[in-house]
Amino acid sequence: MDKSTISERYQLIQDDICHALERLDGRASFVEEPWTREGGGGGRTRVIQGGSVIEKGGVNFSAVHGELPEAIKRAFQVNEQNFFATGVSIVLHPVNPFVPIIHMNIRYFELNDRVRWFGGGIDLTPHYVNREEAADFHRQLKAICDRYHATFYPEFKAHADRYFYIKHRQETRGIGGIFYDRLTPEKTSLTWEAIFDFSCALGNGFVPIYTGLVEPNRHHSFSDNQKQWQYLRRGRYVEFNLVYDAGTKFGLETNGRIESILMSLPPHAGWTYDFKPEPGSAEAETLSWLKPGIDWLEP
Amino acid sequence: MDKSTISERYQLIQDDICHALERLDGRASFVEEPWTREGGGGGRTRVIQGGSVIEKGGVNFSAVHGELPEAIKRAFQVNEQNFFATGVSIVLHPVNPFVPIIHMNIRYFELNDRVRWFGGGIDLTPHYVNREEAADFHRQLKAICDRYHATFYPEFKAHADRYFYIKHRQETRGIGGIFYDRLTPEKTSLTWEAIFDFSCALGNGFVPIYTGLVEPNRHHSFSDNQKQWQYLRRGRYVEFNLVYDAGTKFGLETNGRIESILMSLPPHAGWTYDFKPEPGSAEAETLSWLKPGIDWLEP
Repeated sequence: MDKSTISERYQLIQDDICHALERLDGRASFVEEPWTREGGGGGRTRVIQGGSVIEKGGVNFSAVHGELPEAIKRAFQVNEQNFFATGVSIVLHPVNPFVPIIHMNIRYFELNDRVRWFGGGIDLTPHYVNREEAADFHRQLKAICDRYHATFYPEFKAHADRYFYIKHRQETRGIGGIFYDRLTPEKTSLTWEAIFDFSCALGNGFVPIYTGLVEPNRHHSFSDNQKQWQYLRRGRYVEFNLVYDAGTKFGLETNGRIESILMSLPPHAGWTYDFKPEPGSAEAETLSWLKPGIDWLEP
Repeated sequence: MDKSTISERYQLIQDDICHALERLDGRASFVEEPWTREGGGGGRTRVIQGGSVIEKGGVNFSAVHGELPEAIKRAFQVNEQNFFATGVSIVLHPVNPFVPIIHMNIRYFELNDRVRWFGGGIDLTPHYVNREEAADFHRQLKAICDRYHATFYPEFKAHADRYFYIKHRQETRGIGGIFYDRLTPEKTSLTWEAIFDFSCALGNGFVPIYTGLVEPNRHHSFSDNQKQWQYLRRGRYVEFNLVYDAGTKFGLETNGRIESILMSLPPHAGWTYDFKPEPGSAEAETLSWLKPGIDWLEP
């Protein structure tokens, strides 16, 4: 299993997801922007805007290689000269506040035969938390994880809770999901092939999972106040991505392709001073779910 | 000139500015939220929303003291146990895209008799750069500076250019202004009283300066596309404040009062993938002005 096997497979996953999302949306199409990186490699940024389901979203593929930037050497405390990294990264901001924001990422990183790993995850940010849909989302992630390792779901779910946390708000970005990093055979007792296969299973699981969240909600009626609430929730998404997200920070610090990095930002977001939802409202209930450590699979 | 002289004077400046801005707006009023800090001191956060001129803005006063947080000890490389800090901080996001966003801050910080300083500045972020208004803005700042020291304007103007720079976009936040920090008698050959007086002159200059930018533009007609452009410019403002602004970062890291810190964020902001204004348009012209090092006073 070499680098090109992984990046080619990830490209196919990008293709499949884009086609399926266009069918799901029914109105908008992806616009592709191929780009090359000065130091080596490149990517295909694909963006969809103004759809009937998706207001703004991106499904990006990249496979970059070359000399290891100084910032990474410091961050990883290594002295290697060359690296290879490939991945698919998705963020979708839906039109309807009752359809959740979703994020997926699968990636592979390699310095040499000894230092390489897979990383990734899927997590969900509903503007309105629906307890049953949240449980269903986690059940589907658990089912994929369980096909590979019994500890994957609990470990990766806990990791997502820690990672997708807006410290200054003391709230999670959404209802979490799974997040994993530096996955290797040593850590998992799986083969490289099995770990790669797990990442592809996540990639292939993305469309059915999101379709199940879009279809029942895409025609849900909503008021202007509910749209405003969506803007506020997107504002928190912006706060997380610009202040905490490791991928975003890394991209900004290493002069990555700025429009590809910031495609995760919503089409519109809002900030209202000290907004407090009415006690007992759906908005207040949503906030009450934005805590780490919730066992969504509890009956 | 002791701490309470400074903080009392700054409070009066906050009062004057709020009254004048309410008169200028004519519709909305400030809502005050007094707060106290666990470690000592507190402040008066004043926010105005939904006005005829100001869509969202804040004029905050604070005077805090107590044990020096570890983060500051590290940042300043000092071992002092106690600190005092007071200041007035303003950000106004106007309704009309032809009225610029403005930011002002005056502050005083003290560790002991030897380690203390003044800081602050005023800078302007027009959604549409008007060359004459920009020059006039800089001329007014220079006039205030020149009353105190011939080097203030050129030094503080250059400092603002360096500081209000969105590195990942390679553009300035706006047309700059002045920014100064750690101002002391040793650095300026002025007395503490004169430096304090300079900061008050800036505070008192704020209303006439902003009024001169509001009055000619508040009834300027604008299209939906121009409002969308305003959202994009506000998006850049969000990027600067969350990624680079020292005060914001410091507030988030030291568990400051989050709603007061983030009152600087706009009511609505937007991100469009890879938006490029048409060559020759007013939007493209504005972008061409967002570079450091422009001499606005050049005839």
